[in-house]
Amino acid sequence: MLAEIITIGDEILIGQIVDTNSAWMATKLNQAGVLVKQITSVSDDAEHITEALRQAANRADIIIMTGGLGPTKDDITKKTLAKYFNAGFKRDEKTLENVKNIFKKFNRPLLDVNIQQADVPENCKVLLNENGTAPGMWFDEDGKVYVSLPGVPFEMMYLMEDKVIPELRKRFEMDVIVHQTILTAGVGESFLAEQIADIEESLPSHIKLAYLPKLGIVRLRLSASAAIENQKTVAEVHKILADEIGAYSNRIIERVGDAVFAVEDISLEKALLNYLEKSKLTLSVAESCTGGFISQLITQHPGSSKVFLGGAVTYSNGLKKSVLGVANETLENFGAVSEQTVLEMAQGAIRQLGSDCSIAVSGIAGPDGGTEEKSVGTVWIAVASADGAIAKKFQFGNKRQQNIERAAISALTMLFKFVRKSV
Amino acid sequence: MLAEIITIGDEILIGQIVDTNSAWMATKLNQAGVLVKQITSVSDDAEHITEALRQAANRADIIIMTGGLGPTKDDITKKTLAKYFNAGFKRDEKTLENVKNIFKKFNRPLLDVNIQQADVPENCKVLLNENGTAPGMWFDEDGKVYVSLPGVPFEMMYLMEDKVIPELRKRFEMDVIVHQTILTAGVGESFLAEQIADIEESLPSHIKLAYLPKLGIVRLRLSASAAIENQKTVAEVHKILADEIGAYSNRIIERVGDAVFAVEDISLEKALLNYLEKSKLTLSVAESCTGGFISQLITQHPGSSKVFLGGAVTYSNGLKKSVLGVANETLENFGAVSEQTVLEMAQGAIRQLGSDCSIAVSGIAGPDGGTEEKSVGTVWIAVASADGAIAKKFQFGNKRQQNIERAAISALTMLFKFVRKSV
Repeated sequence: MLAEIITIGDEILIGQIVDTNSAWMATKLNQAGVLVKQITSVSDDAEHITEALRQAANRADIIIMTGGLGPTKDDITKKTLAKYFNAGFKRDEKTLENVKNIFKKFNRPLLDVNIQQADVPENCKVLLNENGTAPGMWFDEDGKVYVSLPGVPFEMMYLMEDKVIPELRKRFEMDVIVHQTILTAGVGESFLAEQIADIEESLPSHIKLAYLPKLGIVRLRLSASAAIENQKTVAEVHKILADEIGAYSNRIIERVGDAVFAVEDISLEKALLNYLEKSKLTLSVAESCTGGFISQLITQHPGSSKVFLGGAVTYSNGLKKSVLGVANETLENFGAVSEQTVLEMAQGAIRQLGSDCSIAVSGIAGPDGGTEEKSVGTVWIAVASADGAIAKKFQFGNKRQQNIERAAISALTMLFKFVRKSV
Repeated sequence: MLAEIITIGDEILIGQIVDTNSAWMATKLNQAGVLVKQITSVSDDAEHITEALRQAANRADIIIMTGGLGPTKDDITKKTLAKYFNAGFKRDEKTLENVKNIFKKFNRPLLDVNIQQADVPENCKVLLNENGTAPGMWFDEDGKVYVSLPGVPFEMMYLMEDKVIPELRKRFEMDVIVHQTILTAGVGESFLAEQIADIEESLPSHIKLAYLPKLGIVRLRLSASAAIENQKTVAEVHKILADEIGAYSNRIIERVGDAVFAVEDISLEKALLNYLEKSKLTLSVAESCTGGFISQLITQHPGSSKVFLGGAVTYSNGLKKSVLGVANETLENFGAVSEQTVLEMAQGAIRQLGSDCSIAVSGIAGPDGGTEEKSVGTVWIAVASADGAIAKKFQFGNKRQQNIERAAISALTMLFKFVRKSV
């Protein structure tokens, strides 16, 4: 089953926004057994959209569009689709009700253009968008499926997960695909590949192993696929594949050992949260150069309050002293970016914020602030618990955001290892 | 002058990486007066690449490809291009020298596949890539330009800036394009559109207005383009367009008034940072449900330490008391999500963290924690300065991450308005 993604919007073609929707959709489609043949970004131009649709229909069975569904004049996807399918418009009452509710909730005046968001091509099935005013639309035409979704990421994501993927599964007989992810941190992709080369070579052709590296983390993803044959049910095929994949997964985990932090497709901080919750340990975070990045990574997860008490973003030296209790002499003698300071920050977090364990980070994220001794990218990280505290120096690169993210991942990995050893 | 970008690589189509190259290239091309007509992502497949090239040549004058130039078997862009142009291969001595130097520098053995990186289609002009082993390639064919660049971002960026854009400027007489962005917050897209409907309608055909909405923020983007005619220079045409666009921009700003927070293409928090820096005010943040999200938004910007002293992520009630000095009675009588608590948090931030102004947020991000009185999505926000403090209740939706982001944007907007009025 082949799909093509068409993203519509001038803002992509002038480079104002990076199209993150496509990668997300491609991942979801792949997981469901649909291969993405092409991703095409076109402008808010009727002729161009139409041409893209025609060409996509020659290549793919499923065409998923995003964007161009807003209430303003520059958004023309809906009109263009109606013309493409030679269809008139109908008013969708459920969508109208939804639009009215949203405007009522936010106490904004309902305008004609907002009401018109409920008008859709008469040949479409509406995918009700409870998170926004632009409805998703599903078209069946000549054996192909066309889906139009809003470009706002969370609206698109909700519609893809809750409506589009389940409907595609129903509509097409897809191969059963089973994935198993192993989350590793702290070791490089090529090192991992060498460690498990023989296991990888022994994989049968219907099981693939992918390395998904990102900033200090490597996800190993095993994917097995099979058609539904010999009168087996989906559940039976699923179980066969899951057992097969599980055996290979176990061999990899045994081999890679300490680098494995989770055997599911979750983030590193979520794996840490799960571990701390199970171990009945609370956590606090003392951040300087990461500026709240670690706290927000943690708190984006529902239920994180069971483990996470809070954090101090001590950007200034004054706050390192007053909030975390770092000694004035430490800052004066060793500087804010030092082993001594970061250890006192981690211990101060435990003492002042009252948690069982803590993370502290102090470094030079850049682009300014580097010196000959301590260049941009120098980051000290400490972790602490009742068992004591350790600190480690890292040397990252010269890109600010990357330094922040690398420091966060390294800090989480460091605490995870520390508590796993001491519990 | 129209361009098409073709990105080549399976990793894009399975969603493993987000294609950030295209947006960057589109920005550079736009600035040079080249409109990007389409962005197309295709797999490492000779037939598919060839089809994409043929179709792009029907739409655009300049076709820029990235990716598929590595030394491994799955990279086939170079071979496919040679076949597309019916060309044989030649060895480029300068590229070979460059490859040898790079391997020498990193002390790695030079393999046959690495030497072959110096073999290029004989009809191409080599764009020497001093940052990597894969050369850029420039082809002139039937009045069209084809450029093939490596997919590694910094290699591509260097070749685009130093070689491709200057060569395009020489080769073509390009339209001049000028953009102007107006950042608004706190009002909806359709409300804005209605307010400025007459201005939008009065725009001449060479000036376009786009609405780019995202979670409480709407960017208005004016774009004007014109050919270089009547012996004018690029700078002269640029000035004419900038003046023209400036006049419309001023009319919009006057009309929309209070909702405008910047007249450049920056983020809301960066606009706030600039304003506070100019006003010589320092900032601290007291976050509960946003969990560090506001702090990290602010600290992602270089130089934020001039304004931002730090933040307290007081997830637990205990830390609201100990770090921010919220009274026990306040928490007991009104709860953590209340006007009283959030006001004490904002005032506590000023007092305990020592800043001139502050933001405080306390709410129920969800999915759990809602009650009949205070449902998921209820968020109290307060801002404070020497002039006092105000608090406001918001009711967002039921998606955690969205509630966090909406609360952050609303809080930044609220402080911005507050300090702008009081300064």
